[in-house]
Amino acid sequence: MKHTVTAKDVAKLAGVSQSSVSRVFFEGAKVSEKTRAKIIAAAEELGYRPNEFARSLITNRTKIIGIVMKGVQNPFYPQVLKQFAAAFKKKGYSILFVHTNNDEIEAEDVETLLNYNVAGVIITDAVMALTVGEEFKKNKIPVVFFNRKLNSEEFYSVSCNNLDAGRKVAEYFFDKGVSEMAYIAGDADTSTSRDRQKGFQEVLKQKKARYRHYSSDYTYNGGFKTAMHMVAEGDLPSAIFVANDIMALGVLDALKENSIGVPGQTKVIGFDNIEMAAWPAYQLTTWEQPIDKMVHATVTYLLEEIAEYTGAAETFEVDGRLIERSTT
Amino acid sequence: MKHTVTAKDVAKLAGVSQSSVSRVFFEGAKVSEKTRAKIIAAAEELGYRPNEFARSLITNRTKIIGIVMKGVQNPFYPQVLKQFAAAFKKKGYSILFVHTNNDEIEAEDVETLLNYNVAGVIITDAVMALTVGEEFKKNKIPVVFFNRKLNSEEFYSVSCNNLDAGRKVAEYFFDKGVSEMAYIAGDADTSTSRDRQKGFQEVLKQKKARYRHYSSDYTYNGGFKTAMHMVAEGDLPSAIFVANDIMALGVLDALKENSIGVPGQTKVIGFDNIEMAAWPAYQLTTWEQPIDKMVHATVTYLLEEIAEYTGAAETFEVDGRLIERSTT
Repeated sequence: MKHTVTAKDVAKLAGVSQSSVSRVFFEGAKVSEKTRAKIIAAAEELGYRPNEFARSLITNRTKIIGIVMKGVQNPFYPQVLKQFAAAFKKKGYSILFVHTNNDEIEAEDVETLLNYNVAGVIITDAVMALTVGEEFKKNKIPVVFFNRKLNSEEFYSVSCNNLDAGRKVAEYFFDKGVSEMAYIAGDADTSTSRDRQKGFQEVLKQKKARYRHYSSDYTYNGGFKTAMHMVAEGDLPSAIFVANDIMALGVLDALKENSIGVPGQTKVIGFDNIEMAAWPAYQLTTWEQPIDKMVHATVTYLLEEIAEYTGAAETFEVDGRLIERSTT
Repeated sequence: MKHTVTAKDVAKLAGVSQSSVSRVFFEGAKVSEKTRAKIIAAAEELGYRPNEFARSLITNRTKIIGIVMKGVQNPFYPQVLKQFAAAFKKKGYSILFVHTNNDEIEAEDVETLLNYNVAGVIITDAVMALTVGEEFKKNKIPVVFFNRKLNSEEFYSVSCNNLDAGRKVAEYFFDKGVSEMAYIAGDADTSTSRDRQKGFQEVLKQKKARYRHYSSDYTYNGGFKTAMHMVAEGDLPSAIFVANDIMALGVLDALKENSIGVPGQTKVIGFDNIEMAAWPAYQLTTWEQPIDKMVHATVTYLLEEIAEYTGAAETFEVDGRLIERSTT
């Protein structure tokens, strides 16, 4: 067990009460200048470091934001994590990184967030049971769902306007003279995959075009296997909208394996605009998610709710845009 | 400001002293069964949640491991982060994720780690000034350098045996009948890049083969540009050892752009064995880093030092292995 210098040690050396020390370091200016000077001198002599946890017990606040994340294999999420870490650092907040193996946040992850009395929670590619949400509300801990839209209006959520994106992708394909198209979905239980599909399908319906759907799982291997299966079926569509980039890269590799020319024989559009989409091996046309704006909206909401908790819920959507490369 | 139930509230309802409450929740069995029962009942009624921070003030311990990371763009590091999060979760520890923009850990990052009184620190792809190291030692916070070997024996470090890997890669090329080879280095100030180079160069010297060196920066773009430059020089070696996979993918894409056949005209070996190395578009031969073993060694050391701080320093190296794919 290690011994750290405590407020008690400082109080003893300064010849003042422990609560005076606390007032100096945690609460502001409610001590006389003379006492303050004595305390600062003693603290410097001892190398006293006011503990964030002690501070949190007094202010009942921590400067920790919990980020729950599952798919670090998808480069989109490390990029998001990095941007959150940078944005919150500027505001004096640190990141508690909670990696969940399941789609649904595990009970112990929630325990962790509550035990550390985090100031706010960001949930990315994970699902949260309603009872868990209630637990956060009871403790007045603001929660943001990032890159997920909720069915209920119970929580604040930030995402790209996926419905609109799906529509625009379909219209783009029609403008290119294509009418035979398919959608490769991500995990079926995600709002992102459903909304992208919905917008896409809507336009196809309007134009009375045949809609084809393939289920996959938002991974490279999922995209690869799905495209191999599509090729084996022998009825390849002339355009494929893939629900995210990492799957789309798998699709492109599978098409290459089968010597199918892109965009000649079939066109491919992904979603996210991860770094790899721009690599010469892929040059993937994709719908860019405006991560900057999404991160900004999330940080702004959380800081407001931390300053004064209202529990305000809203579905905040940001427009993305098509990045044309050589797969269309 | 939110009101959470505190030990004081529980003590009041149970009709016991606050220190009895603390003893029940933080220290173990030093209260009578009767008192304990009263306290547990009151705590349940109020929905009292013993705070990790309060716990840490009493035990002078947190269950937080700080991980300092820079290059989340390199998929090797998100993979490492995920494995650490999973391994520490099993032991009841959480991860404070500290993203640093500079090569050297920023002062505010160190402040954060010290302020949260983390139980241990893992430093991955960042450099730490010696004075910072002293600060951790003074506070008896164990530090591990992960994927970095130190010049001094001041800290525990865990890495792949990079020197041996470099030698083996050179020997492998010679066995393949190649004698004209080059090395593309990562950031010059990293032990990983230097050691891989040293081992590689050593064997070339023994065999009296010409050694060629190109400086780069451990990024995809760096690898791409370096290979473009090599091609432009007009004197392409018949084999290239690239200091990490993400650069090697850039190299392969640059060679493809120039219609240079791999492995026909030149062979390429990377380092890490990231997921993408196995993708059909690349099929990169690479030296695999045994992340599992490296993570295990790191976790074991930290938990031992947390249990009893000795400040023991060691350079721990794990053997990797060559994964042959189609670029050699």
